[in-house]
Amino acid sequence: MKELSNLMNFRPDIRVVDATLRDGGLVNDFFFTDEFVRELYKTNGKAGVDYMEFGYKADKEMFDVDKFGKWKFCNDDDIYEIVGDKENGVKVAVMADVGRCNFREDIRPRSDSPIDLVRVACYVHQIPAAVEIIEDAKAKGYEVSCNIMALSNCQESDIRVALDIIGKSPADVIYLVDSFGAFYPESLARVCSVYEEFATKFNKKLGIHAHNNQQLAFANTIEAVGDGVDYLDATYGGMGRGAGNCQMELLLGFLKNPKYREIESFKFIEKYIVPLRESGVVWGYDLQYLMTGLLNQHPRTAIAFTKEKRTDYAEFYKELTLLD
Amino acid sequence: MKELSNLMNFRPDIRVVDATLRDGGLVNDFFFTDEFVRELYKTNGKAGVDYMEFGYKADKEMFDVDKFGKWKFCNDDDIYEIVGDKENGVKVAVMADVGRCNFREDIRPRSDSPIDLVRVACYVHQIPAAVEIIEDAKAKGYEVSCNIMALSNCQESDIRVALDIIGKSPADVIYLVDSFGAFYPESLARVCSVYEEFATKFNKKLGIHAHNNQQLAFANTIEAVGDGVDYLDATYGGMGRGAGNCQMELLLGFLKNPKYREIESFKFIEKYIVPLRESGVVWGYDLQYLMTGLLNQHPRTAIAFTKEKRTDYAEFYKELTLLD
Repeated sequence: MKELSNLMNFRPDIRVVDATLRDGGLVNDFFFTDEFVRELYKTNGKAGVDYMEFGYKADKEMFDVDKFGKWKFCNDDDIYEIVGDKENGVKVAVMADVGRCNFREDIRPRSDSPIDLVRVACYVHQIPAAVEIIEDAKAKGYEVSCNIMALSNCQESDIRVALDIIGKSPADVIYLVDSFGAFYPESLARVCSVYEEFATKFNKKLGIHAHNNQQLAFANTIEAVGDGVDYLDATYGGMGRGAGNCQMELLLGFLKNPKYREIESFKFIEKYIVPLRESGVVWGYDLQYLMTGLLNQHPRTAIAFTKEKRTDYAEFYKELTLLD
Repeated sequence: MKELSNLMNFRPDIRVVDATLRDGGLVNDFFFTDEFVRELYKTNGKAGVDYMEFGYKADKEMFDVDKFGKWKFCNDDDIYEIVGDKENGVKVAVMADVGRCNFREDIRPRSDSPIDLVRVACYVHQIPAAVEIIEDAKAKGYEVSCNIMALSNCQESDIRVALDIIGKSPADVIYLVDSFGAFYPESLARVCSVYEEFATKFNKKLGIHAHNNQQLAFANTIEAVGDGVDYLDATYGGMGRGAGNCQMELLLGFLKNPKYREIESFKFIEKYIVPLRESGVVWGYDLQYLMTGLLNQHPRTAIAFTKEKRTDYAEFYKELTLLD
């Protein structure tokens, strides 16, 4: 049985990463109130969360700054305004999307920045472009992760090549990203074992970012814990694109390190996530997301179905399977 | 790795049991319309579902027939009216709750009844009373299962004694029931291995009935599949007490036997489950159920919290942990 069998103890290497603003921002175009962000940061401090991802470092020449909230761009000054001198110990992360960020300009040396961790997101066919950002960020002094998206669509042989390249890069952490919510714990375990092989060889840490299309985001995350994955993404109330992510409240309840305090997540959800939902922001498990997850497809069609307020689920499934 | 690793194939011994009326009835006092029940039965036929549980055989001297819909009592005639001569091949199940049914009178010989499977539900301290019903039902010609509830609260040594007694009884199937939604896949796997030991010794089949307090009902069900459990309970839309059950739509999507057709579940949910929710019937994952699951408690306090329409989650968690 897996290490996890010893459910009473904990592994001190575990790191919880709050991705609420970044993945949640994809459903409200990053228009969070300052109060929301400030309280989220405080909550993470009290809850023992290790990292808070503030959003993307998106290229302002590619994206209209008037059409998105500020966390799409994560100016250092905007982060400083929330975190001050970071007394609560929560480290700051941002995401740099391959092909969608001007990293040489927009990511300043770590000594001048509130950011601790740069998370480089890429598809498996963009690895060299990811390495370019990884090297730049590392040279500037950051902790760096490489987050390989849409992993369920990749051939295992391609994953191995990708891991070999990233293994040789200065990245600290390599992420499994189940963008489509298509993995079952058992299939995820097999990819984990491939990742483990390269993590051992190149002395890297591993991370997991799950989506909840089949109500398996939490289950897959704890499966990954048992497989030796240390960096665990979660969001409050599961807020995130489409079916959303692993719920922070479930993850904190599960982790046995006494530094994690799930009651803080309940407080935050009660005061900030429930009202956000009531204001009309929509995410979470629903049949259309189950379907794209089951079919191992990008959720964009399901997101469109949701936006159009369609409820003809069976018809949608026919569309998906005919297009398949 | 587990048998499940071969995700492309299937085990023909798998049986899917629709528990929508029985567990779902606990949230609407069994007041389903005849149309709902009729369409559910048809759906199960088209979807390839093996058994449909109609409800309880509750003792009419203990429960007021005017306060519940008819599926609390499952008169044979009421079942006949729905299933006719059972041309669609779906077998009929009912639940007999230890201490709450008049089984000698209310369960007639199988030759006079539409019922195929009698599911005997008991707590671990009620095993001899369960065996009495098991023997009675078996003598009357039924398939019989014994469903041990609240398993997460039992000592492993007590479970072993219970399984030894049930193993010697004529029951065909022994169920693991995670009444509190407290198991993680890893902890469930350990109980499964104990069950497996007795199933092998006494030539019994195993079953799983999961609750979704920690969004693990589906994950735990597929974990059990990988551990050799064949009888799988699910409900459409996860309808069931508190946080509800393993979603039929997820399970049918997962199972690879081509007889299972998930699109039929989408149709039924669209036409009958969505309107039921919109009419005000409440079930499903919410923080209060997460909390009782996490604390391995009966969900009754969380159900009361829901009924009172409270939303002070953090306060409720304090109440639970102070009472703990």
